[in-house]
Amino acid sequence: MESWKKPRIVPEKTLLGPGPTPVESRVLRAMAEPTLGHLDRDFVAIMDETRELLKLVFRTKNDLTVAMSGTGSAGMETACVNMIERGDKVIICSHGVFGTRMQDVAGRCGAEVVEVNAPMGRPVDPADVEKALRANPDAKLLGIVHAETSTGVLQPLDEIAAMVHGAGMFMVVDAVTSLGGMDVPVDRLGLEMVYSGSQKCLACPPGLAPVTVGPRAVEHIKNRKTKVQSWYLDLTMIMRYWGQERFYHHTAPVNMIYGLNEGLRMIAEEGLENRFARHRKNAEALWAGLEALGLELLVDPAYRLPSLTSVKIPEGIDEAALRRNLMKEYSIEVGSGLGDLKGKIIRIGLMGSGSNRMNIVLLLSALSSLLAKNGFCTDIKSALERVDAILM
Amino acid sequence: MESWKKPRIVPEKTLLGPGPTPVESRVLRAMAEPTLGHLDRDFVAIMDETRELLKLVFRTKNDLTVAMSGTGSAGMETACVNMIERGDKVIICSHGVFGTRMQDVAGRCGAEVVEVNAPMGRPVDPADVEKALRANPDAKLLGIVHAETSTGVLQPLDEIAAMVHGAGMFMVVDAVTSLGGMDVPVDRLGLEMVYSGSQKCLACPPGLAPVTVGPRAVEHIKNRKTKVQSWYLDLTMIMRYWGQERFYHHTAPVNMIYGLNEGLRMIAEEGLENRFARHRKNAEALWAGLEALGLELLVDPAYRLPSLTSVKIPEGIDEAALRRNLMKEYSIEVGSGLGDLKGKIIRIGLMGSGSNRMNIVLLLSALSSLLAKNGFCTDIKSALERVDAILM
Repeated sequence: MESWKKPRIVPEKTLLGPGPTPVESRVLRAMAEPTLGHLDRDFVAIMDETRELLKLVFRTKNDLTVAMSGTGSAGMETACVNMIERGDKVIICSHGVFGTRMQDVAGRCGAEVVEVNAPMGRPVDPADVEKALRANPDAKLLGIVHAETSTGVLQPLDEIAAMVHGAGMFMVVDAVTSLGGMDVPVDRLGLEMVYSGSQKCLACPPGLAPVTVGPRAVEHIKNRKTKVQSWYLDLTMIMRYWGQERFYHHTAPVNMIYGLNEGLRMIAEEGLENRFARHRKNAEALWAGLEALGLELLVDPAYRLPSLTSVKIPEGIDEAALRRNLMKEYSIEVGSGLGDLKGKIIRIGLMGSGSNRMNIVLLLSALSSLLAKNGFCTDIKSALERVDAILM
Repeated sequence: MESWKKPRIVPEKTLLGPGPTPVESRVLRAMAEPTLGHLDRDFVAIMDETRELLKLVFRTKNDLTVAMSGTGSAGMETACVNMIERGDKVIICSHGVFGTRMQDVAGRCGAEVVEVNAPMGRPVDPADVEKALRANPDAKLLGIVHAETSTGVLQPLDEIAAMVHGAGMFMVVDAVTSLGGMDVPVDRLGLEMVYSGSQKCLACPPGLAPVTVGPRAVEHIKNRKTKVQSWYLDLTMIMRYWGQERFYHHTAPVNMIYGLNEGLRMIAEEGLENRFARHRKNAEALWAGLEALGLELLVDPAYRLPSLTSVKIPEGIDEAALRRNLMKEYSIEVGSGLGDLKGKIIRIGLMGSGSNRMNIVLLLSALSSLLAKNGFCTDIKSALERVDAILM
């Protein structure tokens, strides 16, 4: 019998990887509301409200704040294709897979890419950025990843933003794994272009890329000499659809926008500061619990993301088998290492509604049992005590 | 009070425009199934089945048949960025807004674009294509729109495909408004690259672009001298995610894929031939009814799409007011004219589950009443008799 004649199986799983993250039924139900036309009055009202809620989460007054019709990587491409013209020189920092991806994307836009790299697990060193800025005063912009999803490193932005703006350049920031889980200081630092994805701390299904564009970048884009190389991601047209004019560009993913709208409402209800504190406190409890189990974390405490934690796999433990058994025996998804970290770490996401005490307790208990089966003895009792000491 | 503190209003409307089209609750409910990881075993099984169902609807054996993570316009861009390298000469035909869009997109890929144009409301003349092929034997490909959404014109493809392949070129076809509503002869004509959108005759919400790529095009893409200018739409990487390797590229829009899967299941259950016949018969009933109301259709019967009908607005009737009142008094959405046809036509879509007798009766009755209020007398009784004569 053809498989499509059988019921589709979509089991409930606990998503504690780098994304997608758990989506609450409120958001899932919103996606199932009736499809409206992309120029319909009632839909346009939902778009307007969604933009206001995105501005709240980005903490920005930027009018050009939209949800691009693609995943987080489309957000990265949106930033590059709109800000870069062929032949431009740009500085792109990398401290992991997503910074390296941004270097690739910028190169595909015809940019001359100056790389500033840091080893995976460490943030980019502002001193290296300073050197690159001095050596390349003709560069147009600097791109950097705020929350590196491949390692769990939080990149401090203040010092670098000051240098970039001092040099008269634009600053492009990847906030895929930070937006909605911690402060993304768009207006405070005057960041010109910041993008994210719906499936991380915003706790919506994957498929939309929130993007906010500052006034200097809007002017820059409006004054381009050449067309944006991507028609689909061309902000000069998209700003006319999300703006008052409602100029038809492409058919927006209507039901995805409902889901994002509901997810953003949940953030507004919780309050940004409460939400950030919850992510932070749960992360601290997870870190304490993991260390009490005798596990080592990849990232120095000063640079750890509250949303994503990389754990080193002890000698003699098969990382792939561990992840397989977490799924098989506990229906828990965690992430593997990427690039040079493949096989050496697992990545644990506590994002959005997934950032809660029950998930921490479940995961620590599951990890403890599976590690014990492989001869790595752990003290789950004291790990759980550490968690409770922080959270209760 | 902030609007997000009030309930979100998403009223039921009857979508009889050029898309999005009505989405059945089965499909909406599928979108609300739990989000899974994009590399999860159970999700990957749904992707595999979705690919098989897409191959059924495209009537193709092409292994590289995928749903791109964007709307129909992203499908167009996928075709262009992957097939074209900077400096390539291409022939792009236009008989409406979407052909003109393809010319724009190809130009943004750095192609030298040879245009073959036809007036809106008519298909492209194969004799004009022949001339262009003779004058440009060095062109790499010909792009053309099968179902022009801005006019409702069906472009015959057989003769043109034979000429294009005779000249050793690739044929790229826009099937956004035809796939799932009528035959799209991918394998019969050996079309190298065909794309569509989820929100037309496939009757799913907007947000995915089904694309199928023939073996010659796959070879062509694999042997490119330069990187695909879009990282997000780069098929050389996407084929590794949809293939056995499951190479991580970007996070697929998981819940959108559930919806597409359910929509495709409904097509498989109905049977392609039954579905095409339903679209055809309902379109004929609509045409007969509209003509019985004294209205004139834009397109010659030989070139009319079963999925989309353009109706000329009688002298003295305000087109925008007519559409506004259809929405206000009947909650019916129809489309406006685009480009040169703005204010002169409305576009009526009967696509997917929207292609049914009740919608035809409702729309004809609503149109008749609204036209009568503006002094345009119609014979609704005989219009409904014509509809029943065809459908009952």
